[in-house]
Amino acid sequence: MRKLDKMDLQLVKVLSQNSRLTYKELAELLSTTRQRVARRMEKLKRLGVIKKFTVIPNFEKLGYAYVILAVSLRPGTDINTIIERLQAREEVKIIEKGIGAHSLIIHVLVPKELKGAEERVEEIMNELKEAERIDVTFVSDVVKFELI
Amino acid sequence: MRKLDKMDLQLVKVLSQNSRLTYKELAELLSTTRQRVARRMEKLKRLGVIKKFTVIPNFEKLGYAYVILAVSLRPGTDINTIIERLQAREEVKIIEKGIGAHSLIIHVLVPKELKGAEERVEEIMNELKEAERIDVTFVSDVVKFELI
Repeated sequence: MRKLDKMDLQLVKVLSQNSRLTYKELAELLSTTRQRVARRMEKLKRLGVIKKFTVIPNFEKLGYAYVILAVSLRPGTDINTIIERLQAREEVKIIEKGIGAHSLIIHVLVPKELKGAEERVEEIMNELKEAERIDVTFVSDVVKFELI
Repeated sequence: MRKLDKMDLQLVKVLSQNSRLTYKELAELLSTTRQRVARRMEKLKRLGVIKKFTVIPNFEKLGYAYVILAVSLRPGTDINTIIERLQAREEVKIIEKGIGAHSLIIHVLVPKELKGAEERVEEIMNELKEAERIDVTFVSDVVKFELI
């Protein structure tokens, strides 16, 4: 991959704070031209530095909550098969593969009332029968959520 | 809060897939007018349903990795003081307060080489002296990352 320069990084940073800024606004913020911003945006998308332009919603106001499953696997378990199964489920939003205390950390979007949340979690637990241990945490508050 | 209708939810969903769509494009996708899209966007922002328009970057390409600290606290620990300390640190990107296996789940952005990552993690661990137990996981791959 070609090297990213300082202005590329600045552009990602500015967009992470507001991804709806126009080329004109971005050009002003970075003291450059619209054409240069357009070219850099293309580059960042092409190189996959920016994976997606998205929104951070308030899950609670939408009627949802998050449950985090931190999964430890038995040695020799085929983690990729488990990941495939989880990936296919719409309510599984974040899947992080890890080294250390947990092999998989999963964020599951669940209805915010306890009964619905419990059912959803049980379904996902059923997909994780090979796990040695699953630490389940219900997220009661997202205090900070930034990405970069 | 006024009730959100089906089109509000659709709008959030569409924006979560591409937050740079113009009012015109959004209007076409939702078979409505630009004026209506503009009004709904204002409403979603005002009500805090959309907290932020942002990007999902490829952390690795930017030279970073994530470490997840899943923290269990001793009964009676003042969690809010800990949260305040963590919130002030720029490298602490996600702080989730939880009920269940862990009281706090934290995502820390670290340099991707091991030495730098270790130093950063040690610094954060020092802010968590009250913890009973901290499960540390180095994220080796973000397999899925959606927000809604």
